[in-house]
Formats: sequence, C-alpha cells, structure tokens
Amino acid sequence: MTDKTKRTRSEQDRVLIFDTTLRDGEQSPGATMTHEEKLEIAGLLDEMGVDVIEAGFPIASEGDFAAVSAIAAQSKNSVICGLARASTTDIDRCWEAVKHAPLPRIHTFIGTSPLHRDITALTQDEMIDKIHATVAHARNLCDNVQWSPMDATRTEHDYLCRVVETAIKAGATTINIPDTVGYTAPRESAKLIRMLLERVPGADQIIFATHCHNDLGMATANSLAAVEAGARQIECTINGLGERAGNTALEEVVMAMRVRNDIMPYRTAIDTTKIMHLSRRVSQVSGFAVQFNKAVVGKNAFLHESGIHQDGVLKNVQTFEIMRPEDIGLYAKNIALGKHSGRAALRSKLEELGYEMGDNQLKDVFVRFKALADRKKEVYDDDLIALIVDNASAAVDDHLQLRKLKVVCGTEGPQEAELTLAIDGTETFIDATGDGPVDAVFNAIKMLYPHDAKLDLYQVQAVTEGTDAQATVSVRLSLDGQIFTGQSADTDTVVASAKAYLNALNRLHAGQGRTSNSALMQSAS
Amino acid sequence: MTDKTKRTRSEQDRVLIFDTTLRDGEQSPGATMTHEEKLEIAGLLDEMGVDVIEAGFPIASEGDFAAVSAIAAQSKNSVICGLARASTTDIDRCWEAVKHAPLPRIHTFIGTSPLHRDITALTQDEMIDKIHATVAHARNLCDNVQWSPMDATRTEHDYLCRVVETAIKAGATTINIPDTVGYTAPRESAKLIRMLLERVPGADQIIFATHCHNDLGMATANSLAAVEAGARQIECTINGLGERAGNTALEEVVMAMRVRNDIMPYRTAIDTTKIMHLSRRVSQVSGFAVQFNKAVVGKNAFLHESGIHQDGVLKNVQTFEIMRPEDIGLYAKNIALGKHSGRAALRSKLEELGYEMGDNQLKDVFVRFKALADRKKEVYDDDLIALIVDNASAAVDDHLQLRKLKVVCGTEGPQEAELTLAIDGTETFIDATGDGPVDAVFNAIKMLYPHDAKLDLYQVQAVTEGTDAQATVSVRLSLDGQIFTGQSADTDTVVASAKAYLNALNRLHAGQGRTSNSALMQSAS
Repeated sequence: MTDKTKRTRSEQDRVLIFDTTLRDGEQSPGATMTHEEKLEIAGLLDEMGVDVIEAGFPIASEGDFAAVSAIAAQSKNSVICGLARASTTDIDRCWEAVKHAPLPRIHTFIGTSPLHRDITALTQDEMIDKIHATVAHARNLCDNVQWSPMDATRTEHDYLCRVVETAIKAGATTINIPDTVGYTAPRESAKLIRMLLERVPGADQIIFATHCHNDLGMATANSLAAVEAGARQIECTINGLGERAGNTALEEVVMAMRVRNDIMPYRTAIDTTKIMHLSRRVSQVSGFAVQFNKAVVGKNAFLHESGIHQDGVLKNVQTFEIMRPEDIGLYAKNIALGKHSGRAALRSKLEELGYEMGDNQLKDVFVRFKALADRKKEVYDDDLIALIVDNASAAVDDHLQLRKLKVVCGTEGPQEAELTLAIDGTETFIDATGDGPVDAVFNAIKMLYPHDAKLDLYQVQAVTEGTDAQATVSVRLSLDGQIFTGQSADTDTVVASAKAYLNALNRLHAGQGRTSNSALMQSAS
Repeated sequence: MTDKTKRTRSEQDRVLIFDTTLRDGEQSPGATMTHEEKLEIAGLLDEMGVDVIEAGFPIASEGDFAAVSAIAAQSKNSVICGLARASTTDIDRCWEAVKHAPLPRIHTFIGTSPLHRDITALTQDEMIDKIHATVAHARNLCDNVQWSPMDATRTEHDYLCRVVETAIKAGATTINIPDTVGYTAPRESAKLIRMLLERVPGADQIIFATHCHNDLGMATANSLAAVEAGARQIECTINGLGERAGNTALEEVVMAMRVRNDIMPYRTAIDTTKIMHLSRRVSQVSGFAVQFNKAVVGKNAFLHESGIHQDGVLKNVQTFEIMRPEDIGLYAKNIALGKHSGRAALRSKLEELGYEMGDNQLKDVFVRFKALADRKKEVYDDDLIALIVDNASAAVDDHLQLRKLKVVCGTEGPQEAELTLAIDGTETFIDATGDGPVDAVFNAIKMLYPHDAKLDLYQVQAVTEGTDAQATVSVRLSLDGQIFTGQSADTDTVVASAKAYLNALNRLHAGQGRTSNSALMQSAS
C-alpha cells in the first residue's frame, strides 16, 4: 500500500480530501455518535475514497480512544488520523490509537493568534519552542504528521511564517491552516496560502491544507480559493456538520471541482455516487436534519417548481441542472417497492441505496418491509432506509423490550399511556398520565424502569410525506457526563417515541454511552 | 421620499439589498405562502431596511397580482418590484400591480444563454430587438426598470455585452446578472461584472446587481465578489430560501460585509437586529426548517460544545465568536416566562421577540400562555412564538372548529379517533380508524367534512426540546391547482395535526388559496 498523502507536489492537480466528520463534526453540540455508528461512518468514508479520516481526539475520553483505535484497525485505504494538543501526553495517547492503522497520522495543534496566545500565557518564543518539541516528538513516533496553528487566519503573518517554518523543520508533513472562527473570505484565504508558499523555507516540501468554518457562509469558496493558491488538502465534513455553522461541506467542494473542472482543474479520489448515502447516514446518526435547500444533498437540490424551469428541464436537462442526481447516488424518488415485491427485489433496491446485508439481516428487514407495505399505501426509498435504521435499533436480547402500548390522547387531558414492558424477559405493566401522548409514554417507562438519566433531546422527523408516513424519533439521554442516544421509526409517532427511548435506555444498561464533549477539556482547530 | 435605488454611483460603498423571498424564494417547491403571510413578511422586510422587495410575479396568477398590489399599497420605504417576462402583456400587468407603491419598479427578463435562446427559438438579433422593445415599454410606464439576462453566467461574453448595452439604451436603470443555475465561482463572478463595467457603454450610469444560486455552496461568496468588482445590488432571500439549493442568504451577505468591513468596506441599510425574527417567520410560513448548522441563523450558529472553545469563550468572547447573538436579534435562550408572569411581562417579552400586538390580541395570547405555563414546565421564547402562530391560525368565526378529540393509538392497531367538530356552529361527531393516530384523525375529519383536496405535505417540527415540548404541524392541501396551507402548535402532536388540517380546510372554505406555481407557466431568473 502506498501512502498518497505523503507524495511530493508533483501531482499538481490532485487534491486530498480530509474528512473530519468524526472529530470536528461530532463536536457539534448534540451530534454525538456511538462507537458502532463511528465505525460504520468510517467504513463508508474509506469506501468512498476519502484520503484521510480524522477519527477523533484520543485523549478526550476512553470512548474516543477506543473509537479511533477500532477505526484504525478496520481501515483499508484511508490514512487514519487522530487529534492531539501540543503535549507529549496527548501525542503519545494519539499514537497508541492510530498506530493500529496501515497508514497512521498524528495531527497536533496549538492556537497561535494573539487571542489564543493570551490563553496559553506563552510568549512568541516560548510557543515556538513548544511547537518544535511537540512536532518532533510526534514525528519520532509516526512519519506522517500534520500540524495546525489554530486561528491561523487571525495570526500575524510574520509570526505565522515563523511557526509554520518551525513545524516543517521539526518534521511536519502536512501544514493545515485553519480558519477556526469562519472569518475569512476567498481572496484573503488564497492570499494567506500564497504568502506562506512564498515566504516559508521548505514550504514546497510539504502539503498545505485548508480547514474552514462556515460562520459567514463562505467555507466552500474559501477552501477552493486556498486550493487555487496551492493548498492540496481540504478538510471537510459530510453535510457540513460541525460546531456553530459547521465545517466546509465535503459534498460541496468535491462537486464544485467536478462541475467546474474547466476553471478548477483539480481531481479528488472521491466516488461521488456514495455521497447521498453518507449524507443520509450522517444525518440519521447525528440527529442533524439537512435543510431542504442545502446545496447538493438537500431534498430540493434537484427539484424544480416553476413552469419555465420545468419546461426547460424537459427540453434539455442542462438548462437548469448542472449536476445529475445520479452523480451523487440519488435515484428517482419513485415508489420503491410494493406489497408484492419479493426478497430479491428488496435486496437489489437496498444495494442501490448503499446497504449491503447478510441473509439473516435481509430476512428480518423483509418481514418488516412486508408489514409496512400492508399498512402504508406507498413504500418509498426513505421508508426503507428508516426501516433499516429501526431494525438496527432493537435486538432480541435487549434488556428492555416493548411488548404492548396503548395511548389515549386528545383535547381532553390528561393523556394516558398503558404500557407493557419485558424487563430481562419478565413482563410488567403500568399506566401513567402526562402532558401530551409522548410525555405520558415516557412517564410510564420511567415508572417501570426508574433511572436518573436526563432527557437532553427529543426530536421527530417525518420520513416521507403523507399522514401514514413513518416518523423517525431521536432521543438523547445523559447521565454522569455520559451520553446515550436512541432512534426508532414507525408510522405511529407515539410508538416510535417509546421505542427510541427504550433504545437509549438499553444502551445505558449495556454501558454503551460516550463521554459528552462538554464534560471534558477538548478542542478543535 | 427619495428613491435610493436610482442614485448615481457616487455613494461608492453603499450596497442595495434586493430581497426576493416573496418571488424567487416562494418559488421553492412547497414554500407557497398565503396572501396575509406575504403582506406580513413584506412589512417586516420594509421595516428591516430592505431597499427593494421583489413581491411576486403579477401575471402568474390572480393571487400573485393581488399580493403584489397589496404589498405595493402598504409599502413605506422599500421600492416594490414585480417580475415580468419579455412581453408587453406581462409588463403591463406588472405595472398595474406595482404602481400602487410610492416607489415602484418593473423587473423584466429573458434567457440569453445558448440553451435559453434555443428554447425561445429567437436569433441573437431578434432577441436584441425584443429586449429593446420590452425594456423601452417598461420604461415608458415606470422610471425604475430592472432588466435581467437569465443564465447570464453561461451567456457568451460578447453577446452579454450587446444585450446589456441594449437594455441600458432602452432605459433600464438596474442591470441584474443572474447565475441562474448556481454555476459560477467567486473569481469568475467578479470578472464578469468587471468585464461588463469596462466594455459596455453606459455601464457607469446604471447599477449592476448580482443574483446567485447556491447549487455549489458559493452563492454568498459569489455575490460578495461581484460587489468587490463593482456590483451595487445583491439579490437574496431570508434563510437562502429558493428553488433547488436556494438563493444567496440575505443574513449571510449582510453579516459578512459587517463583520469583515475591513476587507469589504460596504454598507447596507439593514437593521440586523431584525434578522432572527424574519428568519423564524419565513421558516414558519414556508414550512422550510433552518438546519442547526446554518450560517448566522441556525440553532447552533452561536453554540459552543468543546471544552477549549467554551473556556476560550468565557475568557474572551472574541476567541471563538466573530458576531454577537444580539447583532441579529437573538437573545439568551433562557426560560422566557413562568406561570406567575403578568401581562406586562408577556408584552415586553413579545416585543423583544419582534411581535407588536394590540390589547385584544395580547389578551388572547395571554390566556393561552397561562394555559401553556400550567401544562409545561418551562416556557421558552420558541414556545411563545409557536403559541402566537397557533393563535393566528384559528378564529372564532371559522367554518370548521375543533370541539373535542380523543385518539387511541399504540402497538395494537388500528388506531382510532373520536372527533367532534363544529361545522358552521353545528356540532357533529364521528369515529374513524387509520394507520397511526394522525391518519385516523384525518380520516375522521374527511368523513365529517368530505372534500376532494389532496394532502400534499404533512410536516411536524418540534418547537423546543423535551417530551412536553410543543410541536408545530404544517399541512398543505391542493385542489384544482390551488394551494391551501394550515399550521398549528400544541404539546400534543395529534391535536396540533387536527388543528392544522382544519386551518387549511377553513382557508379552502374561505377561498383563501393561492395558485400553485407548477399549475402555471411562470419563471425565475
């Protein structure tokens, strides 16, 4: 296996895609993912052709360490990268996790702008020493080292040149220039990279990366401007997930370079037909819905309303479409399957949607598909996806299982829930009241299975249109700094809510939580 | 009153904001607004300091004509603009609507790229003649005329110069350069404006506008690049609403020029503290949710998760924040009010949120607030906003009124609804079954009030967090090419669904629909 990320600058048109959905993306308030979800997303990114996967921040928690280690061990073609602050303890811990990968990378950083220097209380010279020591330490462990001056776009140019030169001399192979607060604009972004390439000795021996945030809505343009100026790695996330207004969206930079290859003659290794599936999965596991009018992956991105537009599209699809839905793996939103469809048709439809499953798993999904097709007039692609998500959320050996639920609600409160749960196989029954049907159900669950976990998030998303549509419900619980998420889908929102809550409680029971970011001293660049 | 949009180019740093939420935004599949909603949004845009409001496409339908006329009549400081194709019939109809405004504008357009010329089957010379004739006709009616070559970014430069010169000679006072398919990139966008300013005779006598779409995620950067090159009007929408991936987001361009005034030294007349209220209202009336990580107006835009970030923010807010929440009218998300809060406290809170209301309206809202505070532990700003939306959606003289609803749902189907409706004051009762509680309720309503309207959209949005949170339900019905929307909020999703459906049916009964865009030959640039 050759490491594409350490090549020299001979392949001038090749831009590396560095995905940080699992690190900077997962840092979004509320977007925590479980260990299994992280492994699944990492596998999909690897398959899609992402050059570098930033898998997490190993020192942040035991959970992060375990996730980065497991992702490293399962990785195939992608370089697996972990984040570390400017300390040998952080860097050692990071190495312990990423070293399991065929192609490991250590990414270490420090805030270099005046505001960040104030926080660390280091002089400029003291910081230079620290950068040299930590980068050299990382390079002694791993021959693929990335270094970032956090808040680079607000760092004095002279000092930025000094720190970058220091990191290169200490052995950094990639220098990332983060626009940590989403502050820059395209011409400025390009100027900064050009300035560094011109002024810093050794700059032509390493790869410059750009890492933009979208606070002013310009992350995509800023990243591409940096590439035009000579950067050859773009740091981004699926759906632009990330703190505040998020990071650069992978799907936008990749499709922009493809659609406008005439003026941006760069290539990536991304298989764009996998974009839509990744977008859906990241939206599902993070609980972050993608808005209808999101570029590339929004529900409306390929829809046309007005008469002239529709007319134009019928006459020549290029009139109003610069990308084809198939390019990103989006197929006609027709009725996927009917109640008479067989197992082979289901399997082939699922494969088209990006789901490969074993015979046993397919058998389960087929039973549930038939049940859904009996109840629901039209079964769409999105219905099938919800069904798979729901199938994955409940196992026969779960500690808590929903046996029976009856809810009475309406204008004459209080609402009432009659609930039968199997707890470790033993059935118990209770009824409870509440403000609204979901509140009543959750009260009933709490009475049968008392616990101290706090409900942090309760969210409903309609999967398809129509009143008989399935709803996906996400629940997030927290207990002692640990986070437990649950999801479920059903045509009955109330039933989906009960199952999602039980799913989260089963994870709590199994100790499958993860440390919440805010419970830790952790960071991003 | 002076018309700011017709000044010469002496005020070099002043950029006009042209809002097309009500025209291009409303063209998004599904984002149709009622007459009253359009008037409200137009009033808010006028108050916010938008220079030009594109209020609709008068010839598209009676509804559009009536909306543009009413918006024109109520306008205070904004120029009111209507859209018209390159035909005298369109232009006359447009003038009939906008002439009621103190400051009217006619905006006429034709597709000038090879793909669009093919559709019209005009030669280059024939199109030139048509442009001259239609722009001159518009200018004879109105001294403020905007002209757009649709798909300008894919039009041959030489021909683009010719058409622009023709329109200027015929009397256009603003020339808009649309990137209709969201195809351009910042440097190209700037180059195009610069080329036109250099080559077209008379170009220094008119104002160039930029109109970008976000298909590749670069609308904001492309608009700002055009301004740097000499454009002095940005066409945009609230929340970036619009077909496909939407238009340039007003909040992004305005805040970018404000935050980065050091490198983009331009001014607008926008009162940015009104942005958040407009964003919420447009999201509510269009049914288009804003994603958590949307720049400026997303729920997470000002949230910080990771430890280092939080630490930095506490030490110095500038460390990670380049805008203050107050700048866009977003105040601390604390508990707004409790069950002991009085009417004065409610009024002052509502004013802070952007709602001014008369005594009677306040009285209604206060009663409902008290009822909510009794049921719900914590009443947040968003709860109050939902309550106002819900209050506006039901009137005592409605044809259909919900008297009583009881729903039984759960794992043992079918779900059942017992419904009592007052139809024109007379109470009737029925019970019905369905797939899920909402399906059962809608079946019951249909049995009591038979109708042929088709349900186009059913959408649930949780307003705040927690299981006792209110849910806002949007319903869209269509009948004979007319669209009827309904909305409601309640802590019980099932009750909110019933009320939203009845709200839409009441509008249908009152004939308050609007013509669906797809039923008409209508367009956008």
